Amino acid sequence: MPTLWSQTLIPTARQVPAEAEVPSHQLMLRAGLIRKLGAGVYDYLPLGLRSLRKAMEIIRQEMNAAGAVEVMLPALQPIELWERTGRRAAYGPNLFIVKDRHGRDQALGPTHEEVVTELVGGCVESYRQLPLCLYQIQTKFRDEFRPRFGVLRSREFQMKDAYSFHLTLEGPGGLDETYQKQYDAYCRIFSRCGLPYMTVEAESGPIGGSASHEFMVPSPTGEDTILVDEKANYAANVEKCATGPRGHSFDGPPTGELDKVHTPNCPGIEDVGKLLKVKPKHMLKTLVFFGIRMKKDEVPVLHGSGLPGVGNDLKSLAQHDCLRFVIAVVRGDHDVNEAKLRHQFFALYPEFDTLVLGDPRLAQEMGFTIGYVGPQVIAGSPWQKQTLLMVDPDAAQPEFWVTGANDVDHHVRHFNWNREVRDPLGDHVQKHLVVADIRNAAEGDPSPRGNGGVLKQRKGIEIGHVFKLGAKYSDAMGVTVLNERNERVPMIMGCYGIGVNRILASAIERENGNDANGIIWPASIAPYQVLITPIKYDGAMKDAAGSLASSLESLGIDVLIDDRDERPGVKFKDADLVGFPLRITIGDKSLATGQVEVKARNGSNGEKGELVAVDQAAARVAELLKSL
Amino acid sequence: MPTLWSQTLIPTARQVPAEAEVPSHQLMLRAGLIRKLGAGVYDYLPLGLRSLRKAMEIIRQEMNAAGAVEVMLPALQPIELWERTGRRAAYGPNLFIVKDRHGRDQALGPTHEEVVTELVGGCVESYRQLPLCLYQIQTKFRDEFRPRFGVLRSREFQMKDAYSFHLTLEGPGGLDETYQKQYDAYCRIFSRCGLPYMTVEAESGPIGGSASHEFMVPSPTGEDTILVDEKANYAANVEKCATGPRGHSFDGPPTGELDKVHTPNCPGIEDVGKLLKVKPKHMLKTLVFFGIRMKKDEVPVLHGSGLPGVGNDLKSLAQHDCLRFVIAVVRGDHDVNEAKLRHQFFALYPEFDTLVLGDPRLAQEMGFTIGYVGPQVIAGSPWQKQTLLMVDPDAAQPEFWVTGANDVDHHVRHFNWNREVRDPLGDHVQKHLVVADIRNAAEGDPSPRGNGGVLKQRKGIEIGHVFKLGAKYSDAMGVTVLNERNERVPMIMGCYGIGVNRILASAIERENGNDANGIIWPASIAPYQVLITPIKYDGAMKDAAGSLASSLESLGIDVLIDDRDERPGVKFKDADLVGFPLRITIGDKSLATGQVEVKARNGSNGEKGELVAVDQAAARVAELLKSL
Repeated sequence: MPTLWSQTLIPTARQVPAEAEVPSHQLMLRAGLIRKLGAGVYDYLPLGLRSLRKAMEIIRQEMNAAGAVEVMLPALQPIELWERTGRRAAYGPNLFIVKDRHGRDQALGPTHEEVVTELVGGCVESYRQLPLCLYQIQTKFRDEFRPRFGVLRSREFQMKDAYSFHLTLEGPGGLDETYQKQYDAYCRIFSRCGLPYMTVEAESGPIGGSASHEFMVPSPTGEDTILVDEKANYAANVEKCATGPRGHSFDGPPTGELDKVHTPNCPGIEDVGKLLKVKPKHMLKTLVFFGIRMKKDEVPVLHGSGLPGVGNDLKSLAQHDCLRFVIAVVRGDHDVNEAKLRHQFFALYPEFDTLVLGDPRLAQEMGFTIGYVGPQVIAGSPWQKQTLLMVDPDAAQPEFWVTGANDVDHHVRHFNWNREVRDPLGDHVQKHLVVADIRNAAEGDPSPRGNGGVLKQRKGIEIGHVFKLGAKYSDAMGVTVLNERNERVPMIMGCYGIGVNRILASAIERENGNDANGIIWPASIAPYQVLITPIKYDGAMKDAAGSLASSLESLGIDVLIDDRDERPGVKFKDADLVGFPLRITIGDKSLATGQVEVKARNGSNGEKGELVAVDQAAARVAELLKSL
Repeated sequence: MPTLWSQTLIPTARQVPAEAEVPSHQLMLRAGLIRKLGAGVYDYLPLGLRSLRKAMEIIRQEMNAAGAVEVMLPALQPIELWERTGRRAAYGPNLFIVKDRHGRDQALGPTHEEVVTELVGGCVESYRQLPLCLYQIQTKFRDEFRPRFGVLRSREFQMKDAYSFHLTLEGPGGLDETYQKQYDAYCRIFSRCGLPYMTVEAESGPIGGSASHEFMVPSPTGEDTILVDEKANYAANVEKCATGPRGHSFDGPPTGELDKVHTPNCPGIEDVGKLLKVKPKHMLKTLVFFGIRMKKDEVPVLHGSGLPGVGNDLKSLAQHDCLRFVIAVVRGDHDVNEAKLRHQFFALYPEFDTLVLGDPRLAQEMGFTIGYVGPQVIAGSPWQKQTLLMVDPDAAQPEFWVTGANDVDHHVRHFNWNREVRDPLGDHVQKHLVVADIRNAAEGDPSPRGNGGVLKQRKGIEIGHVFKLGAKYSDAMGVTVLNERNERVPMIMGCYGIGVNRILASAIERENGNDANGIIWPASIAPYQVLITPIKYDGAMKDAAGSLASSLESLGIDVLIDDRDERPGVKFKDADLVGFPLRITIGDKSLATGQVEVKARNGSNGEKGELVAVDQAAARVAELLKSL
């Protein structure tokens, strides 16, 4: 039974809503797909929900085909689970907490690693029950500081999340196998949803683990930065992307006397640059990290570091050779990449456990004037032995540099690496000064694929993410399985997420996903594939609409009939705004000659569409839909 | 592709979980359908979710067929909406509140009247856009004081809720029409889910409104009490059920001198009864209510009454003829029915606005010794003019009565209506003493259908509820629509709920829904309709299982294959525990003669099932399923 426009709720609007910054947000509101209830919280109206459910159904089919099994885990999660993995602290204010009537805290689930690990730990005893891959499609909650872009960054949203459990990483039934199956399923899902996506190498981020890929829809409005070497078919997100070899040299005469200048209230690169009229690319950005080695039991909690089991007595840590000050130096227009910094640091100091940005108060106590640190601080530092300068190649150059003066409200001009650092360090320089790729890649950098290619920067919307978690959660929660030799070993895990709302938004944000008149849906996730617009819903036109709708539905095509008593212009404008892939217009004149007009929203059969004989219309529509 | 047991997660258990009191809770845990995560919060495992989704799909089909349109409204609801309708207070601690990072309170939706009313108010302008019926199937939250009975009373659960909007109550497009459509759809839904249900007249309760029906599955473990006149095909819940005429008489000599006795710390019927060795049916239970007439602007807030716009200066209210003390008197073994009391009161005092149980402190101030009130209080009360005794017929008898002495820690024996109340009131008695049905009906009461029938009490599980809300929410939220004469009038609303989890639990709790071995599913909502159990998953038996599964799936029947390397006894026990409607056993001996065993879980084809030729098995299964 085809739906009639008047029986559903499609509150279209002509004006662009003031608060909506990106096309998908504007158009989802204007087309009556969603309605704002609160900050980052949206009602899904009938058309929006239809598209959402179509995307969900595609996901469900592909998950089932990939051997994943559907479950439904609660939103209300005991906070103790989040404390066991340390993620209550890691999520911080992004985690919604509900206090129940008995005063107990519950987390409102933004994700389900803890819950699913606890579940599988309680149900699975033997490796013979593995591999197991569980998934769900459901509402998640995240208390975003600034929800925006409509359903792209909201506080309540729909996720498909899957979790796999294995005895091993490699081999039959191992994580690698399921990871690849999920990866392939993602490709099919996004293809079926009509999305032009790219897969991107990614850091695993706060969720932890050892390998991950993101699926991105390229779009100028995307929040994620991707670097691409098109020649080598390489793409990575900005956190992950390596760069090809970049040369460096410390040798070169100073550009002038070291000149200390007063820079009041200018702890940031931009402010100093403006004050001194120096571009950021001629400044050194200097951050202080703490490398910590945990000798169990010896060290109490380091406040502000967020680390368990680490003392706040930095001096004692340093004296016990459990501390390194890592001074990361990049050019002022570059950003330190913490993951790269860690890789480099742990390669040099494998016995160390962690590297974190130094708590400003603690760093200050140790003589680092946060906001005004310059690399030359090492020269006179009582902690010289424990200090390591890690310098990005682009910062390791004999140029004119401005950097911090290691004194509040002061910077220096004419910093020179040899004069300020290498000469004072003398024979120890090798040990304390390392040049390495420690910054985010940027447009124009040499490609890591070493083919002479150059990285280009693109923006994208993240729609999916696959992770190899390893034993992160099973270790934290003590979840084990018996292996072939009857030994208890931690389960190996993977996790796999898709933002279902984002599929809708990115279908609109994608190239050719919208135009001045409204949305242009891929046929697979359009609210209805076909809109029938009788010029007047009456007499022969009404009859033709009804029988054509029945023919289409018997072919498995879903149809909406615009039965409203509105002028044709209004109906056409609404049809274009909502963006139904095909519109069939039934007018009395063409109907008198046994014809109706079939028009593709994306213009593929011409600006005026085509006239089709009534009895051929259903077949022609089915044919056209295949190409949309 | 049929699912293999080893690929999914079915953690069956032999022992009965200690905390599970009712069969559905025990069996859903033991059969591996659900797993407890926290108090009243359950993981749905693969089999449980399959049943849940089947019930949801039946609901969705019937809702669509009834002309309702699906939406998805958020769980996070601005608390202001709940304050506008006064339901934040009405729900009290049952409402989960989440404070977000900016300190704003959000309700975690237990229901969506406010949200949907606000939505429709913002989208619908004209009566021509009505009627409109929106529904959703989604997670709800309710902070139960004591979650129990597994998914029957949990804190996070699945509901189908629908809301309809109308210009009028009657006529085409009116509320009555949609109410009937929903009612009919509910009958089809519960029939298709295989539930023996009864429809029961119900009070609308705290949700408000003017008419409602509940759908109940009879079960001895049900939390709801239903009264049934089987002869007249009448059923109503205990709050709603009327009784047939019951006689009364005040005339009869006292059974003795009025005897004041010391009853320390015995404000309750049971305690006094034990102390004085008197059965509750010989005691009068006396509650004090306040009837209030709101003269706008004149009266500030009455603390403790929960009423807006009413003063706490009871004396001034009384002097302005805006207050009535209503003393409700029922037999000690009966319960006052507030809805009936209100009906009776407002019939006598239509100019009054509300009737609420008196705040104990305020009642005390006015001379009513709460816990020790007896009807004779009216005789000497300074508020005699404002006081009305409403007495249930069973309490209006010339018997031996114990009641309160209107003095703390004291009761009286030998209370007599004539001596203590009628004689002192004299000519005013008519005005102050009313006999009426003001109590809950009970087993043995005369049927209200007046056919000489007697009410029987049964227990039931509420699985659905349909309400006529009227203008309750549209009034409170100022939501109007333009009528034919271009006047703004409040929309008329209905709402319609189904507890989806409860469909599963009541399918198990229903008569013949379980036995000593486990669950007996209706075929429509079983996790899988058919389980194929090869005695050994190997060679010819494995091949036969695979090809039989394919034949069944091509007939639209869903199949699970038990491929585990377990003894047949273990497999059969698990099969019975989960309760698949049909089990096909493939053994090497019968297979050698070209046969398999088909057995219905409910015993309908015998204790041993039947042997069927392999090539006939699919057809026979399809035939059997129709009858299950």
